[in-house]
Amino acid sequence: MRASVVGAGAWGTALANVLAQNGHEVTVWAHEPDVVQDINDVHENRAFLAGCPLDGRVRATSDAREAVDGAALIVVAAPSPHVRAVIRPITPRAGTVVAVASKGIEHGTLALMTDVVAEEWDAQVVALSGPSFAAEVASRQPTAVVAASADGSPAQRVQDWFSNDVFRVYTNADVVGVELGGALKNVMAVATGIAEGLAYGFNTRAALITRGLAEMARLGAALGASPATFAGLAGMGDLVLTCTGSLSRNRAVGVAIGQGMRLEDALAGKSTVAEGVNTTESASALAARHGVEMPIVEMVRRVLFERYDARRAVAELMTRDLRAE
Amino acid sequence: MRASVVGAGAWGTALANVLAQNGHEVTVWAHEPDVVQDINDVHENRAFLAGCPLDGRVRATSDAREAVDGAALIVVAAPSPHVRAVIRPITPRAGTVVAVASKGIEHGTLALMTDVVAEEWDAQVVALSGPSFAAEVASRQPTAVVAASADGSPAQRVQDWFSNDVFRVYTNADVVGVELGGALKNVMAVATGIAEGLAYGFNTRAALITRGLAEMARLGAALGASPATFAGLAGMGDLVLTCTGSLSRNRAVGVAIGQGMRLEDALAGKSTVAEGVNTTESASALAARHGVEMPIVEMVRRVLFERYDARRAVAELMTRDLRAE
Repeated sequence: MRASVVGAGAWGTALANVLAQNGHEVTVWAHEPDVVQDINDVHENRAFLAGCPLDGRVRATSDAREAVDGAALIVVAAPSPHVRAVIRPITPRAGTVVAVASKGIEHGTLALMTDVVAEEWDAQVVALSGPSFAAEVASRQPTAVVAASADGSPAQRVQDWFSNDVFRVYTNADVVGVELGGALKNVMAVATGIAEGLAYGFNTRAALITRGLAEMARLGAALGASPATFAGLAGMGDLVLTCTGSLSRNRAVGVAIGQGMRLEDALAGKSTVAEGVNTTESASALAARHGVEMPIVEMVRRVLFERYDARRAVAELMTRDLRAE
Repeated sequence: MRASVVGAGAWGTALANVLAQNGHEVTVWAHEPDVVQDINDVHENRAFLAGCPLDGRVRATSDAREAVDGAALIVVAAPSPHVRAVIRPITPRAGTVVAVASKGIEHGTLALMTDVVAEEWDAQVVALSGPSFAAEVASRQPTAVVAASADGSPAQRVQDWFSNDVFRVYTNADVVGVELGGALKNVMAVATGIAEGLAYGFNTRAALITRGLAEMARLGAALGASPATFAGLAGMGDLVLTCTGSLSRNRAVGVAIGQGMRLEDALAGKSTVAEGVNTTESASALAARHGVEMPIVEMVRRVLFERYDARRAVAELMTRDLRAE
């Protein structure tokens, strides 16, 4: 099978490598010429996935049309704010299976990434999400993720192409739930980072994660998603990974903010993207549009963008009126 | 209000301290004379909660009847295998509110701890559970837990007595769900410890936690609990805390086993209890009785008690048939 991966960040690169290890021919489209050269010449993406040797079947190009030519599968893995602009100039063969690995909510339109792809392309769109640090996937640590499409067939094809003895793909019909889990968990990672930066402990982190999942599921329900999805790999699984695993970009920004740094300083000079910062305002707007209460998202938004005092914000969260769960 | 805490481990001591800080008179019953002396003389429980100064209102006694005399609230916090034997000789005033903080499933009877208390005492029984490291509660880190009773009134009284600005108590009517969450999470902590001991990474841990919660909820459903409880503080909250926070006794035993140690050596010379080891066989028996599939509990049971190879067991878990979530 010929596959194409649009976007050569850590996650796109790791997914390309899984496909290649499964025997598929993979062409990665990368924005940066040195990333293209790195992948083709030294079989490593030193900019975004350093230290992980790539399968020789992974090839790269900076020509997007060449990348997707003849592909039966296209993986979209660009940062969410760039997805529409990146894919618009490309026209895949009608009916191509597209696995959307980008996680976020588009500014302005408040569209999920599968909706953005479906608006731009005539394709069979699948959301691919779940608890998966790219470097661990690249080093063949056992990992389980979810492929979701309303009609089961494209998700099953994605499952077949990606699965091997260490990379397990479960299918799910709840595209909205799977995507929201992946997008919103980044906001919660900023929230737990803020609490960490304020030197709160594990009890507070566990409470934030739990109440965070509850408000994610509330927004999901308003958008037609199933509560069960949020209890699954793309919901609590990815949330737990991002909030408790290695310090992610999102959590690191939260820690810096909790320690008193300004947002612009916390973001300065970084090549990788803090999707949680991008997603906070969209999530807040989406919650407002649907009349859903999301106190943790609101806390993060006010602390990040209105310079609301972080300690006061977390204290207010923890002392809301006592009530039933 | 006069309260009594039966059991002076870390958790019982921390709960006694919360009550005392809220202005209540608290008497702790402790099995060990030196613990009694420590609490009364130096206001610290150096054996089980070292480094945490206790409120002067916390008093201790080794006389169980004296401890509960006149108490409007009794907190049961003994290790789960000893709860029945410890409380049987005591006869509280009929209708006393009893908050059960012990977590486990009784061997043989397979009874939950609230059932054990209800069988032994004429009392209004409340399950108290949630993500709460005792040392963090003692150092006033913001913490949120759940008080559950089928009839809301005793849970609300427990909520009122325990709540303050840093210790938040939510009420819940699902006693079975709240208790099962607290008991089963210890088995999952052993499971994640085993994976850690085998040097698996965060992706594997997140997958284990997520699939672990799914099988906890399956057993809960068979016992009449609500799935929503497992998505809450006493379910995923406590599970996340125990599997990702400081190395708990349960996880530490798992790590040792994963690194190849025998169970008896992993348990040797420890004064604190690994409740997860106690609970594994009961949970497995309870699952069998109700015809519920619990592959992670089974993996832990076989590795702990049948010396099944840990690496093979985890690999088998991760390579079960691909399917929908």
